[in-house]
Amino acid sequence: MTKTISVIGTGLMGSGLASTLLAAGRKVTVWDGRAQAAQPLVAKGAVLAPSFEDAVHASELIIMIISSAAGGAALIESHSERLDLKGRFVANLSTSMPEDGPRFRAVVERCGGTFINAAISSYPDLIGGPYTAIQYACAPCAWDEIAQTVTPMAPQGTLYTGEDLSVPTIVDAAMTGSFYAVGLAGFLEAAAYAKTQGVSAGQLAEFADKMLDLLRYKVQKSIKEIEANDFSTIQATVDVYLDAVLQWRDALQASGLRASHISALADDLKIAQDAGHGALGFNSQYLVAGA
Amino acid sequence: MTKTISVIGTGLMGSGLASTLLAAGRKVTVWDGRAQAAQPLVAKGAVLAPSFEDAVHASELIIMIISSAAGGAALIESHSERLDLKGRFVANLSTSMPEDGPRFRAVVERCGGTFINAAISSYPDLIGGPYTAIQYACAPCAWDEIAQTVTPMAPQGTLYTGEDLSVPTIVDAAMTGSFYAVGLAGFLEAAAYAKTQGVSAGQLAEFADKMLDLLRYKVQKSIKEIEANDFSTIQATVDVYLDAVLQWRDALQASGLRASHISALADDLKIAQDAGHGALGFNSQYLVAGA
Repeated sequence: MTKTISVIGTGLMGSGLASTLLAAGRKVTVWDGRAQAAQPLVAKGAVLAPSFEDAVHASELIIMIISSAAGGAALIESHSERLDLKGRFVANLSTSMPEDGPRFRAVVERCGGTFINAAISSYPDLIGGPYTAIQYACAPCAWDEIAQTVTPMAPQGTLYTGEDLSVPTIVDAAMTGSFYAVGLAGFLEAAAYAKTQGVSAGQLAEFADKMLDLLRYKVQKSIKEIEANDFSTIQATVDVYLDAVLQWRDALQASGLRASHISALADDLKIAQDAGHGALGFNSQYLVAGA
Repeated sequence: MTKTISVIGTGLMGSGLASTLLAAGRKVTVWDGRAQAAQPLVAKGAVLAPSFEDAVHASELIIMIISSAAGGAALIESHSERLDLKGRFVANLSTSMPEDGPRFRAVVERCGGTFINAAISSYPDLIGGPYTAIQYACAPCAWDEIAQTVTPMAPQGTLYTGEDLSVPTIVDAAMTGSFYAVGLAGFLEAAAYAKTQGVSAGQLAEFADKMLDLLRYKVQKSIKEIEANDFSTIQATVDVYLDAVLQWRDALQASGLRASHISALADDLKIAQDAGHGALGFNSQYLVAGA
């Protein structure tokens, strides 16, 4: 098990990670291109490394969380002649694109190290709490070495996704972007509509929780339908949903809203209907997601 | 407390409601314009009324769940000369528009009855289970009479919203449409993207649950921000989100998807940025929801 950790990048997220590891009693070294960004962590017990090279050499596990994975790989590459990564693990937690993983791994391996690709879904003040999820992809033997070390950052949401480096990146882009952020934006549109009708956001609170219970059930059921490639239904069909969604869209627009999200849904349902899926279930939109 | 219940309309949802009430040991009378639609309920112990008028007169609580609230009001109005609603409660569970409540109430009160407006969020096979939510608006004394009677239909989600008849309608349109349905559609888009990248829907299952934990936390926090009209943030700003969302949108489109939902989000974030909210939080989109 890795015992010492360096956190490269002490912006909001990096500071949150380092603070949590310090609170869990770990030995943490920090470094940031802007030295003053790391000072608050020194007050919490972190060691501030004088250089990137020193920060890397200070620990067994190096967590890189800067503006992008590509930037992280470039940082290691530009220091590669002086870096010794033998016996060290470099975990990328910066936002990455699918092509970043293999490039980052090559750079790390050239210096003798082991690469881990990761993706974090959280807010800085929630790191270390029950709402933080971090996915890790690496060889199983590397996971055995770091699992315990990284768990305090996401005590209920530390997920090992296997060896394929691109999985955390892709799942993060899909689920944080199209699912989480779209869902939250949909809620804001719903709240704006309710407000135009004299219903306050606070009046939505209890029902919102109930809707999330239903959404949790339905998402898991939808995953099974997608895996089975079976979009038939004995419940409401695309035809029925399209009617309802058009009514909702009209109600939102009549109340003076742009109704971006419900309009996008109406458009997608129409495309599903035009493709001949009118008698299938809501989830048949999955079949016509292509441009 | 009302002891006898008539269910008018035995489509998928009406049948689900009637079955659940029968299973809870209630005396249930049913009626549907298409008599054969009610036959399976007779096998479960329901009484099939020979006419709409008989169905209404058979019970203390009349639940109407047909294609629309306007249709329900029209049905009562067209029979009003022969209907005696004194001492009876008529609950609309059909999909309604905000203007339907007062009209429906007037029709019911003209016949001497008490009107309740309601909205159900569920699927037929989930009625009576933990994922069903039904909101009711009526006078408090009417609620006292029917609360116990209706609770078996939504044992964990029976919500009384007060006297304003439009609240269930509005909350339902907002939350079932713009929130729930948009969130589910966003998930389908996410799953379609993951698939193009070689990640199966099943691989999203565990992370999806984590995202829903985070969304539950964030929705309740957003409600507080909206109520306080404070969209400042020490976390990621609209500027930061717009950059990330544009990257995600480009990734989805590059993989051959239409990316309707993440594109709608990018457009809305751009509008928020153009309105000068670039340094505020994600939720400041609420401020620019107007067309």
